[in-house]
Amino acid sequence: MAVPNSPAFHVPPRFPRGFRCASRNVGLKPTARDLTLFVSDVEANAAAVFTRNHFPGAPIILGRETIRAGRLRGIIANSKCSNVATGDEGVRRARRMAAAAAAELGTTADRILVSSTGVIGVPLPIEKIETGVRGMSGDLQDDPLLGAEGIMTTDTHPKALSVSVGNATITWVAKGSGMIEPNMATMLAYIFTDAAFDTATLDRMLRAAVHVSFNMLSVDTDTSTSDTCAILANGHAGAVNEDDFQGALTAGCIRMTEILARDGEGAEHLIRATVRGGRDEGEARRVAKALVNSPLVKTMVHGADPNVGRLLMAVGKCFDVPVIADRTDALINGFPVVKGGMRLDFDDATVRATLSREVVDLVVDLGTGAASAVAYGCDLTKGYVEENAAYYSS
Amino acid sequence: MAVPNSPAFHVPPRFPRGFRCASRNVGLKPTARDLTLFVSDVEANAAAVFTRNHFPGAPIILGRETIRAGRLRGIIANSKCSNVATGDEGVRRARRMAAAAAAELGTTADRILVSSTGVIGVPLPIEKIETGVRGMSGDLQDDPLLGAEGIMTTDTHPKALSVSVGNATITWVAKGSGMIEPNMATMLAYIFTDAAFDTATLDRMLRAAVHVSFNMLSVDTDTSTSDTCAILANGHAGAVNEDDFQGALTAGCIRMTEILARDGEGAEHLIRATVRGGRDEGEARRVAKALVNSPLVKTMVHGADPNVGRLLMAVGKCFDVPVIADRTDALINGFPVVKGGMRLDFDDATVRATLSREVVDLVVDLGTGAASAVAYGCDLTKGYVEENAAYYSS
Repeated sequence: MAVPNSPAFHVPPRFPRGFRCASRNVGLKPTARDLTLFVSDVEANAAAVFTRNHFPGAPIILGRETIRAGRLRGIIANSKCSNVATGDEGVRRARRMAAAAAAELGTTADRILVSSTGVIGVPLPIEKIETGVRGMSGDLQDDPLLGAEGIMTTDTHPKALSVSVGNATITWVAKGSGMIEPNMATMLAYIFTDAAFDTATLDRMLRAAVHVSFNMLSVDTDTSTSDTCAILANGHAGAVNEDDFQGALTAGCIRMTEILARDGEGAEHLIRATVRGGRDEGEARRVAKALVNSPLVKTMVHGADPNVGRLLMAVGKCFDVPVIADRTDALINGFPVVKGGMRLDFDDATVRATLSREVVDLVVDLGTGAASAVAYGCDLTKGYVEENAAYYSS
Repeated sequence: MAVPNSPAFHVPPRFPRGFRCASRNVGLKPTARDLTLFVSDVEANAAAVFTRNHFPGAPIILGRETIRAGRLRGIIANSKCSNVATGDEGVRRARRMAAAAAAELGTTADRILVSSTGVIGVPLPIEKIETGVRGMSGDLQDDPLLGAEGIMTTDTHPKALSVSVGNATITWVAKGSGMIEPNMATMLAYIFTDAAFDTATLDRMLRAAVHVSFNMLSVDTDTSTSDTCAILANGHAGAVNEDDFQGALTAGCIRMTEILARDGEGAEHLIRATVRGGRDEGEARRVAKALVNSPLVKTMVHGADPNVGRLLMAVGKCFDVPVIADRTDALINGFPVVKGGMRLDFDDATVRATLSREVVDLVVDLGTGAASAVAYGCDLTKGYVEENAAYYSS
């Protein structure tokens, strides 16, 4: 699978043919945009993956049902209330939300994907959404950043990317990073394309891309109850070479993953942990995740300290991976710091200086095989504690 | 196995017959005590458990060899340098450290357990230790708090407990909490008794106690390369009923676990997470650990917010546990907040007020069986970030 490192992302990002979006304040929040609509002018083939949390929100329960048909006209997403832990009534309200968007767009409720983010355990103010969505089809615009702004919570900037592949365009719109809304948040990532692919192919390509991108992202180890990643393909651009499309899709998902990690709560650095030399990919993934998830590695990056001991500790606590100490090497921002499990006599000041970069690359070579993996995370700061301790859920 | 909730711990703690300790500054640190000796006047039966980290320190490698004989006269422990990632030379220096203590006590090196904590990847200043330990047998005293002080790193107070069981005494001396020394730290817990038990029984009782106490402790998910928990029984008090001893041993280990969790880096609260209604103990343990390890649960306790969504999220992300949402109940400090996976309409202000207590009890009932477990952790504060980001490893 080709993963181009630097596809030519458009500046500014734009939608593929036939896709538009709108966002509004409908009274869920005091003044900020809290309701967003993404629309294809024709039915699109679609695929989606959802959170694995055992307490999925009502929109997830409904979304799993909706996506089975593999066809979507649009997506409706609200912020402020996540419609999680709300029981059967929550699912009924999610259905009413789909129906309201469908009526506005002249389609049926089973062609609308619903997302909600925000406080959990609170009834969804469905009447405000039903009233508020009326007329939104008149607001639709070509700018994906408008939709990205509409789904923002504690994100510090709207997040959208687009790239050309053959005659087609792929556009990503996303928000959040792990549990980035301090209460019960969500990673939402929507991908739009005018390439023509059947649903089964879309599903396969989406899962392949997510496996090495969003599924390797961790801000704080906490898995939201509402995570959703969906792709819509309306076919306006006709057929596109599948390998080319997969390469661009994966590259964009990885780039969006980096953007989300860097904007993790309180984060000041993106941490990219590459593990190579594993016996299989699963082992490499677990060690890479252990590195970006270790509070002591995260604070080490925050403090710009080349603390080799913390790297070894984080690798060594992967009890289900057969780590061999004297085969283990490590590099920080390209500088070898560990060889055969022992600390090298590296130039501390030089390596320390590189840790002030916005992107910090940690590489561990397990020396036991040929498998590799990359995980994406961020540093742990007082800002993270402040955002999440100061928040009141009610 | 009986686990008395409130055994009558002695105030102040004292040693069993035949045990004493001494501590000194030998120049590893500028002025603080950095070398400690624990001694039994006769050879004691002994058992120990060590870190599972794949990069064990040299003292762990040596300790596993030493403990096989099941006999100890003493323990020598230094701070400031952990003797980890130091290769074969590190093991040689750990052996010299054991030999130096043995010479001072008139025994052989294979009867001395060695512990080192502090910076990793730095050669152990063995000459300072060899010189410094001379004459320490003349300093030995009856006060376990002196030894506890001698092994402190970032601990805010020395940690020792003792309790009577039958005619015997059990004394615990411990330091640290997870990675409490900001570089590469250690949980050390030494247990001394004058009860008479053979090595195999000691080993079995120690593992049973550690399973429900120290192994359920997590300050930051980061497993040290130097963790050691050892028990020495010199037999001066003769035989003690095994069930009584196991009960007291377990109760003391749990109490020491609570003390370590409460003194975790930057911590202001002890979090006790009880999970009941699991299908088996393993599942209950995994969910309880997920609760105390969730950064969002930890910051929720720090912020005194009864954020039910974070509790459900943390339970729900245990993908290998078959959580059934509509059977899941939860309580915060005794107040029911979740019933059947849905947030109850509890009195927010009342529950919020209880969260200012030093000890916060979270209870989750999985409703799927009869197994239970308790995990011990602490809140996540700016103090944790400050200690670990400000630290320089060299």
